[in-house]
Amino acid sequence: MRSRFQHGLDELKERLLEMGGMAEAAIELAADSYRKRDARLAQQVFEREKMINQSERIIDEMAVDLLAMQQPMATDLRFVLAVLKINSDLERVGDLAVNIAQRSLDLTQEPEIEVPVDIARMTTAVSTMVRRALESFLSAKAEVAQAVLEMDNIVDRMKDEAFVNLVGQMRDNPDRVRAYLDVLLITRSLERIADHATNIAEDVIFWVSGADVRHNVRFSQEPDSDAPRSH
Amino acid sequence: MRSRFQHGLDELKERLLEMGGMAEAAIELAADSYRKRDARLAQQVFEREKMINQSERIIDEMAVDLLAMQQPMATDLRFVLAVLKINSDLERVGDLAVNIAQRSLDLTQEPEIEVPVDIARMTTAVSTMVRRALESFLSAKAEVAQAVLEMDNIVDRMKDEAFVNLVGQMRDNPDRVRAYLDVLLITRSLERIADHATNIAEDVIFWVSGADVRHNVRFSQEPDSDAPRSH
Repeated sequence: MRSRFQHGLDELKERLLEMGGMAEAAIELAADSYRKRDARLAQQVFEREKMINQSERIIDEMAVDLLAMQQPMATDLRFVLAVLKINSDLERVGDLAVNIAQRSLDLTQEPEIEVPVDIARMTTAVSTMVRRALESFLSAKAEVAQAVLEMDNIVDRMKDEAFVNLVGQMRDNPDRVRAYLDVLLITRSLERIADHATNIAEDVIFWVSGADVRHNVRFSQEPDSDAPRSH
Repeated sequence: MRSRFQHGLDELKERLLEMGGMAEAAIELAADSYRKRDARLAQQVFEREKMINQSERIIDEMAVDLLAMQQPMATDLRFVLAVLKINSDLERVGDLAVNIAQRSLDLTQEPEIEVPVDIARMTTAVSTMVRRALESFLSAKAEVAQAVLEMDNIVDRMKDEAFVNLVGQMRDNPDRVRAYLDVLLITRSLERIADHATNIAEDVIFWVSGADVRHNVRFSQEPDSDAPRSH
């Protein structure tokens, strides 16, 4: 019985890792569709997202079945519950990649603009966060999870800077408001992906250490600050 | 044993209902802070959100304890798992109320603008969705949950209309870009609250009927469309 359960846990881990890979790929593809102004790449994100959704459903069912049939205790129970949460975070990452692809698609229909924001750098940071968060889960390393939380502050600062710069551009180029707004929404989707990576990291710390860091960490600064005033 | 478990389930329901009430109150307060340009009301939202976070933690712990100690089967297991998901959705609603309050606070520092969007109507729709979603859970009525899914389409349309109108205003009033952007972000936070109500309704349908409507419903149209082109 125990070994069948262990086998179930291993399969769950593997599936989740696979799903993490799909989510990361979706982020990269979405960012490429923006960078290259390529509608076909955006289309590929939409297709990936369907796969991610399907994967979410399978993992969800597997986890619930494990709980129902094996009734795990203590650590194993918390592990399966963490899988359920992480699964749902990864599915949202897929949705956000779709948002980015939609905005990129929109941008292909606007004249090209000068963008005062390093989207590529922000994408790299965000997709690294997702990978590390997942690594921290699979290796049960709280210190890796902790590093993800620290990266989130950096991404928040990038988003805030982007906001100020993009508002300035909109003010100076009212004819290009729509395009700058698209870019602004892309930075916000990236930042929300970072939030999901942060959720995962917090769940890992909770799972590994038994300590609930969620609200202490997430709300020690101004909660989910959208945009600072520029002065 | 069974009756102690039943008692635990009842307490869980009661707490969740209480949390739903807090989330609704936070939405209303945030909308009031916008309507009245009142920084103190925004401040109250920040305080409510701390209570919501605390409540999330308590419910989470209660649910995990129930799973660990009582090892419920089948329907009861799915019920407790649904509580965990809904709990997390309600906590995000609190975050989004904070986002709205922050934007409202920001707006108090800008000259007042003519807003071509009925925020009050959108708020009513969204907060009704949250209440109905929770009702559908507590009464286990799939048809109430179904009504929530239909309301989500209405809110999506409101958000899309708002987008087009606000982009127009930004183009025509570049000096007021910042203020219009605040309003646009408020409409997006409201729409994300509606998405969480939709998540809850989908979980209820899943829990009641055993059918997974999540991706069929949510992605039957263009997934999470951010903004239509205005033509």
